[in-house]
Amino acid sequence: MVDISQSVRVGIGLIGTGFMGRCHANAFGSVAGLFDLPGEPVKAMLADVTEAAAEAGAAALGFERWTADWQALIDDAAVDIVAITAPNVLHEPMAMAAIAAGKTVYCEKPLSTTAASALRMMEAAEAAGVVTSVGFNFLRNPMIALAREIVTSGEIGEITGFRGRHAENYMADPAAPHSFRTDPQGGGAVADIGSHIIAMARYLVGPIAEVSADCVTLYPERPAGPGAEEMRRVEVDDMTHALIRFAGGVGGSIEANWAATGRTMDLSFEITGTKGAVAFTQERMNELLLYAGSGARAGYRRIEAGPSHPPYGRFCPAPGHHLGFNDLKVIEVADLIGSHVEGGRCMPDFREALAVQETVEAMQTSSQERCWVTVPGLGR
Amino acid sequence: MVDISQSVRVGIGLIGTGFMGRCHANAFGSVAGLFDLPGEPVKAMLADVTEAAAEAGAAALGFERWTADWQALIDDAAVDIVAITAPNVLHEPMAMAAIAAGKTVYCEKPLSTTAASALRMMEAAEAAGVVTSVGFNFLRNPMIALAREIVTSGEIGEITGFRGRHAENYMADPAAPHSFRTDPQGGGAVADIGSHIIAMARYLVGPIAEVSADCVTLYPERPAGPGAEEMRRVEVDDMTHALIRFAGGVGGSIEANWAATGRTMDLSFEITGTKGAVAFTQERMNELLLYAGSGARAGYRRIEAGPSHPPYGRFCPAPGHHLGFNDLKVIEVADLIGSHVEGGRCMPDFREALAVQETVEAMQTSSQERCWVTVPGLGR
Amino acid sequence: MVDISQSVRVGIGLIGTGFMGRCHANAFGSVAGLFDLPGEPVKAMLADVTEAAAEAGAAALGFERWTADWQALIDDAAVDIVAITAPNVLHEPMAMAAIAAGKTVYCEKPLSTTAASALRMMEAAEAAGVVTSVGFNFLRNPMIALAREIVTSGEIGEITGFRGRHAENYMADPAAPHSFRTDPQGGGAVADIGSHIIAMARYLVGPIAEVSADCVTLYPERPAGPGAEEMRRVEVDDMTHALIRFAGGVGGSIEANWAATGRTMDLSFEITGTKGAVAFTQERMNELLLYAGSGARAGYRRIEAGPSHPPYGRFCPAPGHHLGFNDLKVIEVADLIGSHVEGGRCMPDFREALAVQETVEAMQTSSQERCWVTVPGLGR
Amino acid sequence: MVDISQSVRVGIGLIGTGFMGRCHANAFGSVAGLFDLPGEPVKAMLADVTEAAAEAGAAALGFERWTADWQALIDDAAVDIVAITAPNVLHEPMAMAAIAAGKTVYCEKPLSTTAASALRMMEAAEAAGVVTSVGFNFLRNPMIALAREIVTSGEIGEITGFRGRHAENYMADPAAPHSFRTDPQGGGAVADIGSHIIAMARYLVGPIAEVSADCVTLYPERPAGPGAEEMRRVEVDDMTHALIRFAGGVGGSIEANWAATGRTMDLSFEITGTKGAVAFTQERMNELLLYAGSGARAGYRRIEAGPSHPPYGRFCPAPGHHLGFNDLKVIEVADLIGSHVEGGRCMPDFREALAVQETVEAMQTSSQERCWVTVPGLGR
Repeated sequence: MVDISQSVRVGIGLIGTGFMGRCHANAFGSVAGLFDLPGEPVKAMLADVTEAAAEAGAAALGFERWTADWQALIDDAAVDIVAITAPNVLHEPMAMAAIAAGKTVYCEKPLSTTAASALRMMEAAEAAGVVTSVGFNFLRNPMIALAREIVTSGEIGEITGFRGRHAENYMADPAAPHSFRTDPQGGGAVADIGSHIIAMARYLVGPIAEVSADCVTLYPERPAGPGAEEMRRVEVDDMTHALIRFAGGVGGSIEANWAATGRTMDLSFEITGTKGAVAFTQERMNELLLYAGSGARAGYRRIEAGPSHPPYGRFCPAPGHHLGFNDLKVIEVADLIGSHVEGGRCMPDFREALAVQETVEAMQTSSQERCWVTVPGLGR
Repeated sequence: MVDISQSVRVGIGLIGTGFMGRCHANAFGSVAGLFDLPGEPVKAMLADVTEAAAEAGAAALGFERWTADWQALIDDAAVDIVAITAPNVLHEPMAMAAIAAGKTVYCEKPLSTTAASALRMMEAAEAAGVVTSVGFNFLRNPMIALAREIVTSGEIGEITGFRGRHAENYMADPAAPHSFRTDPQGGGAVADIGSHIIAMARYLVGPIAEVSADCVTLYPERPAGPGAEEMRRVEVDDMTHALIRFAGGVGGSIEANWAATGRTMDLSFEITGTKGAVAFTQERMNELLLYAGSGARAGYRRIEAGPSHPPYGRFCPAPGHHLGFNDLKVIEVADLIGSHVEGGRCMPDFREALAVQETVEAMQTSSQERCWVTVPGLGR
Repeated sequence: MVDISQSVRVGIGLIGTGFMGRCHANAFGSVAGLFDLPGEPVKAMLADVTEAAAEAGAAALGFERWTADWQALIDDAAVDIVAITAPNVLHEPMAMAAIAAGKTVYCEKPLSTTAASALRMMEAAEAAGVVTSVGFNFLRNPMIALAREIVTSGEIGEITGFRGRHAENYMADPAAPHSFRTDPQGGGAVADIGSHIIAMARYLVGPIAEVSADCVTLYPERPAGPGAEEMRRVEVDDMTHALIRFAGGVGGSIEANWAATGRTMDLSFEITGTKGAVAFTQERMNELLLYAGSGARAGYRRIEAGPSHPPYGRFCPAPGHHLGFNDLKVIEVADLIGSHVEGGRCMPDFREALAVQETVEAMQTSSQERCWVTVPGLGR
Repeated sequence: MVDISQSVRVGIGLIGTGFMGRCHANAFGSVAGLFDLPGEPVKAMLADVTEAAAEAGAAALGFERWTADWQALIDDAAVDIVAITAPNVLHEPMAMAAIAAGKTVYCEKPLSTTAASALRMMEAAEAAGVVTSVGFNFLRNPMIALAREIVTSGEIGEITGFRGRHAENYMADPAAPHSFRTDPQGGGAVADIGSHIIAMARYLVGPIAEVSADCVTLYPERPAGPGAEEMRRVEVDDMTHALIRFAGGVGGSIEANWAATGRTMDLSFEITGTKGAVAFTQERMNELLLYAGSGARAGYRRIEAGPSHPPYGRFCPAPGHHLGFNDLKVIEVADLIGSHVEGGRCMPDFREALAVQETVEAMQTSSQERCWVTVPGLGR
């Protein structure tokens, strides 16, 4: 818990009150009661599209002040961290303004609508020396930290293969209408959720160097909007299968699929090494499967999250109690406040998020050109 | 979210800052951002054993004021709901004082150290007409609500059997020392966690009428305290197996076990009906198994929690995101604030918690006397 | 494989051509191609209720000769092992005749319809010094051999608890008619399948000394026969829950249930020790779950059957290929032929099967008298 | 069971007594006791590399005669079906001889060492009009028959994606030596086990039209033989990931991996449709997962094999008893004897096995040329 005698006030300015906005607000509200932080988060200001929405949101989510002008929020002296949960197309202008104001920037994924835009954002942030963080919250899971420790320590030997997937069913219905997701700026399934498994692959095994992908549009037309009779052409993928080669030579595959009937959150992987393997699915986010050893007692073991997997113990003092999705966001903002106060990169930051976006675009290019594509930016 | 124009201020007075105290504080802090409440919870006052502890706790957990005098907290005009997370032996005096002050009482389980004490508390609360609630938080799981709907609607036919268990491993080590749990007032495994599966059985199938139990003390001596060389005799059970008969005639079994090596939170059940069955374990709290139908397509299906299972949608707009343990506490306080403002029982209340405690004691009596015992208080 | 130069001819006489009769025939036909046996089984003679049935059965199942007179089969010089798969009520006269003729007796479970009858059979067999074997085939699973090795070696420490069950759904339908199973001589669910989990408990943990059971008849009337309109009273249980204490003091519970909607073969157990645990269900008969170790890498591991679990390698040279139910019968007859030729007990033999039956009857007595009952025959 | 009055004698000539040879022998020995066959299999003659081996094998496996000359076996008048379990390089000459002799040919997979060879075999067999069958035994699983029925009936809507894999660990150890498998004629993992998942994909979804594959050799050198110090270069893959497009347009991926530490037989798939999905792994070969329906009760259901899934009932009259690997071979020979006596294709026959082999080679070509490759022979 916060030692208030020494703590620094950290003013939070939140832009947006949708699902992610509320998720951020709750995380900033809970984090001090759960973590020993070097700074005390204060919900300073909320921005929404209208004054009325902003006022109601501020009341409900516990912000001190509100505004309908996001630039004013960014410029406000009481705001130290700008949290961006606005539509993707606004990420760049908002982040650029926050960087210009010297603020720490906490942006939802994807970082932007194109890699070119993301590159501008990364370069501006690094030139300004501000702390950045991008909301790939699934990486914050204590079981993913455990997986990374197992993989990077050599505990399962040399890594020999990666098999990853992010499959959900939210666009499985052909009658699911167009939205920002199916807009070319949304980037399709490979951008929307493929980015999560790409970020995971990079976090656990390293940079992806080459890809050969097949982006499939299952439903070439969808209703133009909710309940619309008019149909509109879809130009993005519903499902992408990709072959990948990591920079270190390891091969594998990745699938992104938002039309995977029966799957709710199969953000999953199996990483094989010469001496063992780990496997995970977000559908059972409090479990990691580990294969190690050999002989008559060997088998995949189901490790359940508990206090021996930090920072689980911040939430519950005993195993078996389980973290939920919203808790991952709390861990993310705890890391963010740490980096904001004490400095250092808050991974995954803009640089990392750019690499994810470049990998996504390499998959799209590969599919169009039906060939292997080298991911740009390697060795940047 | 709270419509602040109409909302009633609900002052929270919290006693205790241990695991459960912090869990309560976070729940009261998050609930307004997640639920449409008829009142606005305000973290008014915190009590702890010393002024310093109370002050530090209030700062960390966001309470407006603090005190080392729990009676003062109860009497404070700004406190509407008294939340008791103090040691079990203090539940009765604290609750009695809160009832005398006409406050809503929110008490952690078990309600008290004996059924006789719990009976006094229930009678006082009902005589005073105050709202009460007891923290059997596992009942708040949307998947348990779904199980109850399936069982009570007749969807799986007439209920024919119940097989329940709460097994953990936190006392499996013979070197685990004495604590309040192993004190006779703690009641042993059958009281500490048996109460959860008894509460679950009652919630899903109904009152338990008769029991035949075998309470086993695996380690007759444990270290007197953490690191102590001195051993102290243990008089409570580590593991209880019980036969049960519900008031409606259904038979079954219950196990309570805090020495179940390998189990972290196997609060589990299988309820069999003439047309189907449901099964659940808290180790996979976002899943309910349902068997229904017949023929070549029949099989246990794994239902994953999602927005079609209220109030899941309050936390996440899509399935696959998962609730965690702390979210169950948020649902509990949402129900509590609803009952506080609008009236009505907040189940499980003192009356229900008393019945659980009487069932626990019937099991202990049955084991001592090696015979079937009728649970007292049936038909009260 | 058989070294024919040294092998002894072992003549098999099979009585019965139902499910178990065919299962025996196939096992005797396959075993020589899979195991190195000290004798060569020859399908010498088949008995069935009519000459025609016996002749057809002999042709289909590959027996050299046939008869409608089971006494003639027993007396035939070409028959060395008498395999009894006739109705339970005939087990005693057939076994007694085979014992009198000095033949090895291989009898399907249950050994007989009462413990008194089973006692007579055991005493006669031991007086005559013939080899006996009873078909509790689930014990032949290589994963059960592994479980036994783990439990008896101390690998999971001192055993502290047993939780067992045999649940199926074949009588879950109230319209399922009377049969030999629901006849008082059949003994109900506790005899029909409870005997399997009792045999398993004894095999893994040891003799059961005391029981407190609750035998429940879910459907007091069933159709008198297939398609019958007439209803007939049912006097046996559909579901039994029992508390048990092993002779060594370990406590636990057992359930037998033939009306467990949704379960096909949940012959399952969880055995807890001070240092670990093992768990199993026949629904996944090629897997054993083992919990061992502690700390951040501990978890239940899923051990898959393979050549390191004898005699799996007799069937397949690599893991992952899986044994099926009929393979367990092959292992059983391999053991039987070994004992027949080389001598020694072929466990579970008549003595062991008698103890199972006495445990079943103790449960029935306990339920009638609503008290704990000591299992007779302990220390015999 | 066989109606002997009408049955035709079907003489079996088996070449080879390795794992597969014994597996064939047992299947031919058991099948008549389990299936109603139009012909009676007789184990007529066995061929092995030496007279002594053949004589011993014939005795152990129950063959009437033996020979060290496979051509003599093929020419023998008592042999109707020639079963080939010899090394892959001998498949073509043996099959060609059997075809020339007008015999039914039952060949283990892969059909041959190259697609060109397989094409010659297919053309010869079809020109001669003989019945052929290739041992892709995993397709014989009743749960695979169920999956096919579900997929082809439209029960899960239009098929939108396929995700398949065959992963084992038998070559995961870098010290595992060279063998016929790692020989270029063996074809590597993609041929050895990739052929199984390709056959499965074709059986369930249809012909594969295009592939983009990445064949990875994890260990470029292996010991030249068991225990050898000398290392020999490996030219085949250990792991292949491939993108696939079916002729009908459906996209997906396939992995073949014999170095998948932790996996014993993950011959698995998930087939997604617009209305549902099915999933399977050979590691749990008695279960099929089916997702169907929608709403608060939807979920993947685990269907357990039982008599409602033919021909399961041939082996056991009740669910929960489980088939094993060897039982799949029994089903295969039952189908074979049916086709032999009554005519008609015995799928998968030589034509089908050729298409599998062409798909394997297309993957190898794709990997070498780093581009998409059209599978030859489509529309043949």
